[in-house]
Amino acid sequence: MLEFDKTPSYQSVRDAATQLRGIAIRTPLLESMALNDRLGARLLLKCETLQHTGSFKFRGAYNTLSRFSPAQKSAGVIAYSSGNHAQGVALSAKLLGIPATILMPEDSPAIKLNNTRGYGAKVITYDRYHQSREEIGEKIAKDGNLTLVKPYDNYFVISGQGTTGIEIAEQLKERDIRADICAAPTGGGGLIAGTSLALRELSPRTKIYAAEPAFFDDTSKSLATGERVENQDGHQSICDAIVTPTPGKITFGINRRTLSGGLVVTDNETRAAVRTAFHYFKCVIEPGGAVALAALLEGKVDIRGKTVVAIASGGNVDPSLYSEILQEGDQ
Amino acid sequence: MLEFDKTPSYQSVRDAATQLRGIAIRTPLLESMALNDRLGARLLLKCETLQHTGSFKFRGAYNTLSRFSPAQKSAGVIAYSSGNHAQGVALSAKLLGIPATILMPEDSPAIKLNNTRGYGAKVITYDRYHQSREEIGEKIAKDGNLTLVKPYDNYFVISGQGTTGIEIAEQLKERDIRADICAAPTGGGGLIAGTSLALRELSPRTKIYAAEPAFFDDTSKSLATGERVENQDGHQSICDAIVTPTPGKITFGINRRTLSGGLVVTDNETRAAVRTAFHYFKCVIEPGGAVALAALLEGKVDIRGKTVVAIASGGNVDPSLYSEILQEGDQ
Repeated sequence: MLEFDKTPSYQSVRDAATQLRGIAIRTPLLESMALNDRLGARLLLKCETLQHTGSFKFRGAYNTLSRFSPAQKSAGVIAYSSGNHAQGVALSAKLLGIPATILMPEDSPAIKLNNTRGYGAKVITYDRYHQSREEIGEKIAKDGNLTLVKPYDNYFVISGQGTTGIEIAEQLKERDIRADICAAPTGGGGLIAGTSLALRELSPRTKIYAAEPAFFDDTSKSLATGERVENQDGHQSICDAIVTPTPGKITFGINRRTLSGGLVVTDNETRAAVRTAFHYFKCVIEPGGAVALAALLEGKVDIRGKTVVAIASGGNVDPSLYSEILQEGDQ
Repeated sequence: MLEFDKTPSYQSVRDAATQLRGIAIRTPLLESMALNDRLGARLLLKCETLQHTGSFKFRGAYNTLSRFSPAQKSAGVIAYSSGNHAQGVALSAKLLGIPATILMPEDSPAIKLNNTRGYGAKVITYDRYHQSREEIGEKIAKDGNLTLVKPYDNYFVISGQGTTGIEIAEQLKERDIRADICAAPTGGGGLIAGTSLALRELSPRTKIYAAEPAFFDDTSKSLATGERVENQDGHQSICDAIVTPTPGKITFGINRRTLSGGLVVTDNETRAAVRTAFHYFKCVIEPGGAVALAALLEGKVDIRGKTVVAIASGGNVDPSLYSEILQEGDQ
């Protein structure tokens, strides 16, 4: 039986990179000379929007599902997710011939619901304000003997997401660049945890920051206090991909050692970053995927004269919301 | 003095690749498993939207300007362009320390006018319905002893654009793929001419097509008749980047030998392709940059069961038009 509760390491991330070779896309690390001029900094954008399924989540999902035993494969996988992990699991399951059941909030963006179904997964929706996805998910898993793959607190998932960090380090080295700062959008913390394991080893002088939406800054607060804290109820954000209630247990165990802190942005700052990515990078980033770019553009940490990396973690945004954001302002 | 009127060859394209190494971005060749499933074909998208200045035009411009003599460099460059060649010349001139004057239609997309100015070029606008850019350009060039770099009928420009084709061939080879078809958006014909020189040599079994908007299908008609024909007046298209009146003399001399034909799409088909790129590739493509993708998606040549490459040649679209296109329909 696979052990999902172990603590990932640089070695497990490296091992995931081997597992994903030729399967995951080595996404580009883009930069815009015009934007660099405007910022007085060198900003590199790691475009996980161009990953299979439009987000980094494919990495962790494939790394996990590809290690299922034959019995696990035939019984199937279950996952719960606001939409990007759902798509990552659904496509990985399809590629590996594993039946997939995905539990998604009934108010997930239509693009995420449709894409997940499009990969052949069985989608079950729930009311995220009144039902517990953990409870529903565990019941379905138990009843059907399915393997539950959580979106971040999973050894193989975190290790897979960390391959993003290995690629960043390699791409920096190819161009003979040293990065002062790297920031990543942070929900449960799987992407930043895995990425930080890679960068601590391969680029030890790079400071790593978790970027979060206002009112969903549980990782930032937890890093500041040293303990996992929960967000207060009653708030909303357009960043549907990363509005998790509290840091993961495994992820925070890593992030408390590896991160320099958290950066918090308003939804309006995120919307401006989505427009900046449209203008300078021609990349479609969903709101939750743009918070790290937003934090660096808004100077939540001083970037002047520095070389900084923002991970654009996903691009699954409904066209109506994207159009609304584009029309709001000049950027 | 540089000779701009020579006929490019595979060797001159190869030489341009050397000149551009480490300067131009090696843009990704993307594919979407979900779209491939839908199409029953394998479609690869060469994303020149991610090139410096948001279009392939940087390649040809830099290849040309970087060969100027010291006297040419200090006197400066002049170019006329609907906007993408303008930006390519402006950024290349900036990188090389060459003063640049750019003649652009007064109704160019704001994003193209602003970006060109942003790279430090002096922009002069003209009325493209009543004035001849060729005449104005040649007068300014003569008066100020500036070197005129035409947008396509130039040996070094065509050779530079052809480096797109070298990269496509290399990227196909890395993945052990053979392409049956490659299509590129075609205005004056520089991109497809250069690309075809590369592919004829490196991927000789790939059929190459010029894609054009309806009513601006001068290359398609010229290929069919064997002679350079002009478009009829009185039509409009949203594809501002490629609404040229007639094929270039040098470019058509190449294209008549290397291409299998032309593919013509309506503006509505182009708009649908822009939406498809948003959904499946998270890439912002401008209308003129999406006509090759549109032609393949619409089956203007049969792609079922085949491996096909569409070049997405540019991404400089005003947010208002892009929003309008996104909101029009489901794709």
